Amino acid sequence: AEPFDPTTHSHRRFNPLTNEHVLVSPHRSKRPWLGQIEAPQPVDLPAYDPKCYLCPGNARASGEKNGQYQNTSVFVNDYAAVLPPPGPIAPAAPHPLLTTQPMQGACDVIIFHHRHDLTLPRLTLEELGKVIEEWIRVYKMRGAQDGIKYVQIFENKGSIMGCSNPHPHGQSWSLSEIPTIPATELQSLKRYANNPDVAPSDAPRGLNGRPCMLCEYANFEVQDQGRVVVQNEHWVALVPWWATWPFEILLLPHHRHIPSLVELTEDEKVSFASIISRITIRYDNLFSCSFAYSMGIHQRPIPLKDGDSGANADDDVAHLHLHFFPPLLRSASVRKFLVGFELMAEAQRDISPEQAAERLRACSEVHYMNSAA
Amino acid sequence: AEPFDPTTHSHRRFNPLTNEHVLVSPHRSKRPWLGQIEAPQPVDLPAYDPKCYLCPGNARASGEKNGQYQNTSVFVNDYAAVLPPPGPIAPAAPHPLLTTQPMQGACDVIIFHHRHDLTLPRLTLEELGKVIEEWIRVYKMRGAQDGIKYVQIFENKGSIMGCSNPHPHGQSWSLSEIPTIPATELQSLKRYANNPDVAPSDAPRGLNGRPCMLCEYANFEVQDQGRVVVQNEHWVALVPWWATWPFEILLLPHHRHIPSLVELTEDEKVSFASIISRITIRYDNLFSCSFAYSMGIHQRPIPLKDGDSGANADDDVAHLHLHFFPPLLRSASVRKFLVGFELMAEAQRDISPEQAAERLRACSEVHYMNSAA
Ligand SMILES: O=P(O)(O)O[C@H]1O[C@H](CO)[C@@H](O)[C@H](O)[C@H]1O
Ligand SMILES: O=P(O)(O)O[C@H]1O[C@H](CO)[C@@H](O)[C@H](O)[C@H]1O
Repeated sequence: AEPFDPTTHSHRRFNPLTNEHVLVSPHRSKRPWLGQIEAPQPVDLPAYDPKCYLCPGNARASGEKNGQYQNTSVFVNDYAAVLPPPGPIAPAAPHPLLTTQPMQGACDVIIFHHRHDLTLPRLTLEELGKVIEEWIRVYKMRGAQDGIKYVQIFENKGSIMGCSNPHPHGQSWSLSEIPTIPATELQSLKRYANNPDVAPSDAPRGLNGRPCMLCEYANFEVQDQGRVVVQNEHWVALVPWWATWPFEILLLPHHRHIPSLVELTEDEKVSFASIISRITIRYDNLFSCSFAYSMGIHQRPIPLKDGDSGANADDDVAHLHLHFFPPLLRSASVRKFLVGFELMAEAQRDISPEQAAERLRACSEVHYMNSAA
Repeated sequence: AEPFDPTTHSHRRFNPLTNEHVLVSPHRSKRPWLGQIEAPQPVDLPAYDPKCYLCPGNARASGEKNGQYQNTSVFVNDYAAVLPPPGPIAPAAPHPLLTTQPMQGACDVIIFHHRHDLTLPRLTLEELGKVIEEWIRVYKMRGAQDGIKYVQIFENKGSIMGCSNPHPHGQSWSLSEIPTIPATELQSLKRYANNPDVAPSDAPRGLNGRPCMLCEYANFEVQDQGRVVVQNEHWVALVPWWATWPFEILLLPHHRHIPSLVELTEDEKVSFASIISRITIRYDNLFSCSFAYSMGIHQRPIPLKDGDSGANADDDVAHLHLHFFPPLLRSASVRKFLVGFELMAEAQRDISPEQAAERLRACSEVHYMNSAA
């Protein structure tokens, strides 16, 4: 029989963070695309747009005016998905299969830069450093509030990812419960941490010397190199073995166990800004467009409280990591749709993670808009 | 304190099929939409399009020509995501965290009608009956093949749901493993079937008299009526308590336990065609457009084999049901994006399931294109 070739033969891979499989159909990328063509992202945006509710000095929906901020700015979302605790208690639902849980919290908008026309890949490393400081500040501030159990920082970039304003910004939703996906990831990490069968390796260990699945995985990938896109002293950006989105990236520290943004040293912040810049520039260069994605930061649900003695150390298994989920597949206008089969049965992808990593490795680290000049 | 109001206060609900939560933020539907506007679905399509690879008599990518079929037709997808078994065995992956499993099978295209310009809501009940017969035929045929453990029938309708050809059609992917989502649903149903604490109700019971979560749920909703869109003697279409998509519908039999399409009586098929027609017409009438969705049929993974004595009865917990996941939220051009927060943390919706059911109940059952005539 023909030997198995992961770039030709369909197979499935397992995601040990979410416990889901992904069906890989590498032979399928040859299929012609006759479907929806994505609109191009706007080019030639002005540095300041008088109609933009995120630009300095402009008024927002609430009537409030933005300050004449420089670099970053943070404000409460005028259309927050959750409102501050405490809220009314939900009554018992009318049947045991129906359950309601109150959910409170806060939604913040984190503006990355005062200029309307920039994006993360077009910021300087110093400016990216300010974005990182803002993430840390919001995570600490919200995570210290009464009733907040989880802070999710994320960015939707590009109108095809539901972003309604090109002004560079992300969000932070802070909640009174740990949401489904991070709860699942934390459970997987905990199972691994408590698994005595894990063979010892030279990977960094988690808190109290317990095995950390993500430290182990990062360590393996740095040795293997097959899925690594870029790396530096502290960080590795790779297309995970179980990637669902065509050019998905997992970005995480590989040299030591780091539960959250709060624990980053100054050196680690500098190299963090650098690797964010390098991967987002490669993304833009892949199809010479402003590359759309959703990005999210997974870490310890909230920072340790002052004087926390580590009583919950058993649950303290998080290793800081960022997911980038970009939808484009073949060009600036042809995306992968995760629809019928994917919504009803299982995630499916058309190029292998190794092929995607190779494509991203081949991209330049000089942004195409600068190299044209 | 203010009493809890599910149409005002944010809360989360639990989906007992997938074990995921959804965050409900009903107050958020007031937010203005400044983002991407969806292109309108094509109108005035010709009844026959010489360039369409699904129209009768036309050539497909493989070079093969479609027959001069009437009503339905089925052929193997020219760009199948999986290929027939047996395939080569995947070698062991280089690290315990990396796992590969071979996946084989077949992908079929199921054409719903010979006319290029029709859709399910515009077929007669007799024509819909032929689509149902075709689903049954494919499910039986593929499910009987060696190495096939699961048959997933689905439809992507509309270019915004990744459908690349408006000619009315669905697909069927048959696989050598049970995919992630149905495997999770079956596990939830099995847990419920084996739960001695389930209080007896007047709902139908599953095989061997065991509790069936979906029979129980359908029975409750028919009594409650709060989320029911339409129902008939055998079927109920409702916006589930845990709906993620704005106008999501769960369609299932409520009068008796039915594992799969194969067990439907002639009467049940007639009422099945009728309720599919009624809900898809209401969908089109909601925003006066061809309403996009992904639809999938969940049922017993494959039909019972001839002479099967029910040895696997313990796992035989499926109750036939269809999911409809439509993305439009406010109009023919404004959709809900399930992006950053939803991809990184938890599903989130902006109107309550009860509000969505009410909106759909208010729609006419005469298709807007016919009533205009
Ligand atoms: O097979 P089609 O219709 O060309 O493709 C569509 O449905 C498939 C199954 O849900 C998806 O994997 C594709 O991304 C989508 O474009
Ligand atoms: O808050 P925004 O940017 O207006 O909205 C966007 O991100 C949210 C969080 O992922 C989603 O719920 C919305 O569907 C999306 O359009």
